[in-house]
Amino acid sequence: MLVTDPHSIRYLIGVDIEPGERFLGLFLSEKAPKLIINRLFSTSVKDYEIVWYSDTDDLTGKISQLCDGERPLGVDKQMPARFLLPLRDRLPHSRMTLASECVDWVRGVKDETERELMRMNSRINDEVMLRTRAFIREGMTEREVADYLIAQYYDLGCESVSFDPIVSFGANAADPHHMPDNTVLRRCDCIVVDIGGKKQGYCSDMTRTFACKEASEELKRVHELVVRANETAESVIKPGMRLCDIDRAARDVIANAGYGEFFTHRLGHFIGTEVHEYGDASAAFTKEVEEGMIFSCEPGVYLPGNLGVRIEDLVLVTRDGCEVLNRVEKKLEIVG
Amino acid sequence: MLVTDPHSIRYLIGVDIEPGERFLGLFLSEKAPKLIINRLFSTSVKDYEIVWYSDTDDLTGKISQLCDGERPLGVDKQMPARFLLPLRDRLPHSRMTLASECVDWVRGVKDETERELMRMNSRINDEVMLRTRAFIREGMTEREVADYLIAQYYDLGCESVSFDPIVSFGANAADPHHMPDNTVLRRCDCIVVDIGGKKQGYCSDMTRTFACKEASEELKRVHELVVRANETAESVIKPGMRLCDIDRAARDVIANAGYGEFFTHRLGHFIGTEVHEYGDASAAFTKEVEEGMIFSCEPGVYLPGNLGVRIEDLVLVTRDGCEVLNRVEKKLEIVG
Repeated sequence: MLVTDPHSIRYLIGVDIEPGERFLGLFLSEKAPKLIINRLFSTSVKDYEIVWYSDTDDLTGKISQLCDGERPLGVDKQMPARFLLPLRDRLPHSRMTLASECVDWVRGVKDETERELMRMNSRINDEVMLRTRAFIREGMTEREVADYLIAQYYDLGCESVSFDPIVSFGANAADPHHMPDNTVLRRCDCIVVDIGGKKQGYCSDMTRTFACKEASEELKRVHELVVRANETAESVIKPGMRLCDIDRAARDVIANAGYGEFFTHRLGHFIGTEVHEYGDASAAFTKEVEEGMIFSCEPGVYLPGNLGVRIEDLVLVTRDGCEVLNRVEKKLEIVG
Repeated sequence: MLVTDPHSIRYLIGVDIEPGERFLGLFLSEKAPKLIINRLFSTSVKDYEIVWYSDTDDLTGKISQLCDGERPLGVDKQMPARFLLPLRDRLPHSRMTLASECVDWVRGVKDETERELMRMNSRINDEVMLRTRAFIREGMTEREVADYLIAQYYDLGCESVSFDPIVSFGANAADPHHMPDNTVLRRCDCIVVDIGGKKQGYCSDMTRTFACKEASEELKRVHELVVRANETAESVIKPGMRLCDIDRAARDVIANAGYGEFFTHRLGHFIGTEVHEYGDASAAFTKEVEEGMIFSCEPGVYLPGNLGVRIEDLVLVTRDGCEVLNRVEKKLEIVG
């Protein structure tokens, strides 16, 4: 098996390399593991045999020499075609098959150190959300708010944001992935703020939705509904629950209120060193959660041309329930 | 052919979607092009037939229905195994082959609008480099300098940095990809600053190397050598030159001075909407450059445990030579 996701390699053997477009692989077989790495990068790893290559080497040849050409080769879900297809041509009798799930599922369960890092990051995220909520004023642009909040992560010691922040006003919020632009905040607009930072290699991610100056009856109704969906899902999470059933719990609340078609995405995604890791809370994902898993719980309702509401926390599965890592008030706050 | 690189899709049809871990594809055949897109994303594209899918749909089935299962299927260099291998299983008689080079090579040639955006971004990058050079003081940490310069991009209207900036002091600079940490700047250290920003979707990228307070004779000698390698390469660039020969021109300068083994990477990479695009100036890349191509020219010398020097400009190939997009002084500046 060839592990090529840099996050998985760091997780497995502690080698922290971001190879960009170059190949980085950990080859696992009955023999000793081998790390395949470009000479451009340095590593002090001791316990692994290293196969170095240069930009001008026949990389595919080097990898294929490690493989038993008569047996299947497990590959990483992320392995790009530019490495995969030349290797397939070199190993015509070795069927390639997706094999990274065994690593990804283990990564999904966070150990005590990881849990503490995730808690710390969510505390920082709460603080950035509170500062942002206090900062927003009618007349500001989405971009201004986004720039302000990005600076708060650095102020709080983060290495970076964990993703480009989403700040959406009014009808823009009906697009769950709207990117901040020069739209100006006006009275009665909803305000979706979906943000996260990264410190010591781990990510945070949360969303709150506010109203500017006052809230329409519809916004109040939808907001209350989405909070209820969020809290309902959080109340059912415990070891042994299937992720699709957690998604279902939130979805039923929204569907029963007649807004089912406007909850257009999965309930949540796993998170850790990457903001989106393997595993999600969706109708298609039938595995059961285990103690120590951390994922997002983020129902939303999006009414095109009008408004959008999303409420997101990170949750950590505990022995008999879950710990909600975010603590910022969920009821509809009036800002601006 | 299935184009799945979001940058290529934006380039080809103007649809600007960052699909994250979800599938986004443009299917090209003799029939009308089709865009395969998750319902989570919105698009106003008019001229293309859209194949929508949801997170719970059989995506592989939808894609395979578009294909002629008896004919080869061209795939994108970036297409990850988690999409590629299930599609291979569904289309057992359709051999997959890498086909994105035809798009990537066209993307490599920038039109007038793109050239202006690249010039503007490099002017911003020059300004950030000058501010950073003026800011650096003995006793600062790499992280402090990096945080300062990141803020300058936002101050100058950029959307983001185009990559995590590299700020390396002293022996850290011998690792070309060292990430800023709490290392403190000391007298006689070399200082490698490799930075870029992104505005209106296009990237900049440049490197300068300074000395703190004073420079050792070795640093002066290596710095002068790397500047000469950089300028030699820039002097030979013109349409029809092979990229491997441009790399060779710089490499020969360094090798002839006895430092060949310490120039451990390719001379440069193409750049545009992505900081690393298809195409590079390396011994392995034998294509000829064309007017309008933009790539980096960044020779370096890395002496382990001691120092590193890299000097990088972006260059635009013109009718009979090249335009160097960066203007910050290359001779060794003393800072701190």
